[in-house]
Amino acid sequence: MSQPLDSSKVTIVPTGTPSAPIPNEKLRFGKQFTDHMLQVEWTAENGWDAPVIKPYGPFSIDPSCCVLHYAFELFEGMKAYWTVDDQISLFRPERNMSRMNKSAARICLPEFDTEELIKLIGLLLQQDKHLIPKGEGYSLYIRPTMIGTTNAIGVGAPDRALLFVICSPVGPYYKTGFKSVKLEATDYATRAWPGGVGDKKLGANYAPCIQPQLRAASKGYHQNLWLFGPEKYVTEVGTMNCFFVFENKTQNVKELVTAPLDGTILEGVTRDSILTLARARLDPTEWQISERYCSIFEVRERAQRGELLEVFGSGTAATVSPIEEIGFEGGSIPVPLSEGEQSGPLTKDIARWIMEIQYGKSKFQDWSRIVAEA
Amino acid sequence: MSQPLDSSKVTIVPTGTPSAPIPNEKLRFGKQFTDHMLQVEWTAENGWDAPVIKPYGPFSIDPSCCVLHYAFELFEGMKAYWTVDDQISLFRPERNMSRMNKSAARICLPEFDTEELIKLIGLLLQQDKHLIPKGEGYSLYIRPTMIGTTNAIGVGAPDRALLFVICSPVGPYYKTGFKSVKLEATDYATRAWPGGVGDKKLGANYAPCIQPQLRAASKGYHQNLWLFGPEKYVTEVGTMNCFFVFENKTQNVKELVTAPLDGTILEGVTRDSILTLARARLDPTEWQISERYCSIFEVRERAQRGELLEVFGSGTAATVSPIEEIGFEGGSIPVPLSEGEQSGPLTKDIARWIMEIQYGKSKFQDWSRIVAEA
Repeated sequence: MSQPLDSSKVTIVPTGTPSAPIPNEKLRFGKQFTDHMLQVEWTAENGWDAPVIKPYGPFSIDPSCCVLHYAFELFEGMKAYWTVDDQISLFRPERNMSRMNKSAARICLPEFDTEELIKLIGLLLQQDKHLIPKGEGYSLYIRPTMIGTTNAIGVGAPDRALLFVICSPVGPYYKTGFKSVKLEATDYATRAWPGGVGDKKLGANYAPCIQPQLRAASKGYHQNLWLFGPEKYVTEVGTMNCFFVFENKTQNVKELVTAPLDGTILEGVTRDSILTLARARLDPTEWQISERYCSIFEVRERAQRGELLEVFGSGTAATVSPIEEIGFEGGSIPVPLSEGEQSGPLTKDIARWIMEIQYGKSKFQDWSRIVAEA
Repeated sequence: MSQPLDSSKVTIVPTGTPSAPIPNEKLRFGKQFTDHMLQVEWTAENGWDAPVIKPYGPFSIDPSCCVLHYAFELFEGMKAYWTVDDQISLFRPERNMSRMNKSAARICLPEFDTEELIKLIGLLLQQDKHLIPKGEGYSLYIRPTMIGTTNAIGVGAPDRALLFVICSPVGPYYKTGFKSVKLEATDYATRAWPGGVGDKKLGANYAPCIQPQLRAASKGYHQNLWLFGPEKYVTEVGTMNCFFVFENKTQNVKELVTAPLDGTILEGVTRDSILTLARARLDPTEWQISERYCSIFEVRERAQRGELLEVFGSGTAATVSPIEEIGFEGGSIPVPLSEGEQSGPLTKDIARWIMEIQYGKSKFQDWSRIVAEA
């Protein structure tokens, strides 16, 4: 009998040495963690074991464990926010949970009841709520992770797995805060391809991207803009989705463009939120919202014609990250910014729209979910 | 000052409870390990720490460790053999070591002096030599592994790493022994891509292949034959390189064909050994040895014309694995086998050539390296 994931079976083992909150100015992204973590073991034989919330600490892993050899690993990135009503909210958590299940299925790790994991994360947040930083741009980064834990080096589907959730109090992702960054349009390395796994949040997609990132950094760029194919379509930025704003002067409309979900880009929760908000809030007589292929050649050509208005990346860690320049083929494609600002006007509006929902200042559908109380 | 890997600094901590050898008939591939393992820590600050050979046992890993999130992991597969002269040999170990360095460089893990690691593996084998099984087809599978061990969930180059080597006494890789297997020619999933990392032995390349393997298994196939691109070129088999033998009746020659090293296939040590031996030992007036693209359509067409003579996979784990059938587009491409045998004649010869070198029955260049004594 295979047991489903069941939040009601949770055991909570509180730490004997609760820590004090880290002052906001001393937060370092993803290097400091809260006092507790969630762990749930799974076996092919029995299904999901009883969840445990316990003090943050190391695992014991056998050197033959399949996660260390064959990358049976996947993760999610979410954030918890203190709302203006002093409640703790998650932003569209069901989207992360269902993506996590898709990632799991793709590498033969177990799926789970998504609402049960949201409840368990709520219990974890309740336990560590005093460590969630307050203030605009501050939040608790939540890292749900699943790894295969079979101890055998034959290549096969894991018969054991561990789901765990750790939390890191964070400020703005980029040290520079809401500050525009420069991208290198990268065509010598390929992040993802049709029939691959680039649309899943697997560990496998990340390690191979670091070398090109260092190479871009050595030339003064903050991130890669990943191109795909002979057409050199723009796909993603580093660990974010990517948006372009073009002006079509003859028709007197503007176009917000992002790459389509064809299996080569991550299905970003922030990406979907931006598209949904743009369709709901931008005047359709003035704006066209497009999920379509767009080549770096189009970007360059329209920049030269003065039709490239804004570029920004989107993701949970950075929310919205304005882009000021794209390097390509030894040249530079400059992106306009508002006078005296670090972004264009739409980038700024969208960042504000999302932040207002996340921090409970405004409501949009059921995107902000209260999962723990003060 | 960054320290190089130095085998002379090794500390050996022998187990207090040495185990008895497992009888050959009870060996299970990659599930049983010898008494000792090698570990070497690296930091960006100090380089390679002193190596330690110590009892096999679990690591302590922080839940934020980058190997669990971003697949900073790579490995090699090698084997140690008891030669007919009662010495312990490795087969072309410098090839595995240099490939390991290439894998490491690609994901920003540290490189090392390859001869130093070979010496350390020799010391590890010396320690556990009574656990290396004897007999044809039996050996000690050696798994050098390197993982990133930085405890932080920001995506970046690891500043800490761990190199470790574990060993598993093994018999033939496939339970069926030297027995022909069936492949599904797979075009709905893509293992590797130009500009990707499919030619490196990274964990990232393995987890995504298991779901297609299970799908093939559900249709009665043992492994996937990975196709690439609209031309549907044959690339690799499961975790092996792949060879085809064609007959060209009009020119009265035979052709041994394998995919070229274009970045989408692993640079197999066994693959290179087969090509080298074939060029050295097959009569060039009768044989053509080709590293070239070959589509599944060509394979099917030539099978229909009676020109497909043999197919086999090659890799360290299986050495040579004869193939009897390829499923493609709902049909079946049968591969001839010698009367009453599980392979064709060249497959059998090549397997014997390599085994004879590995077990010291014959010598070829410096391919067999003695690294420990009885």
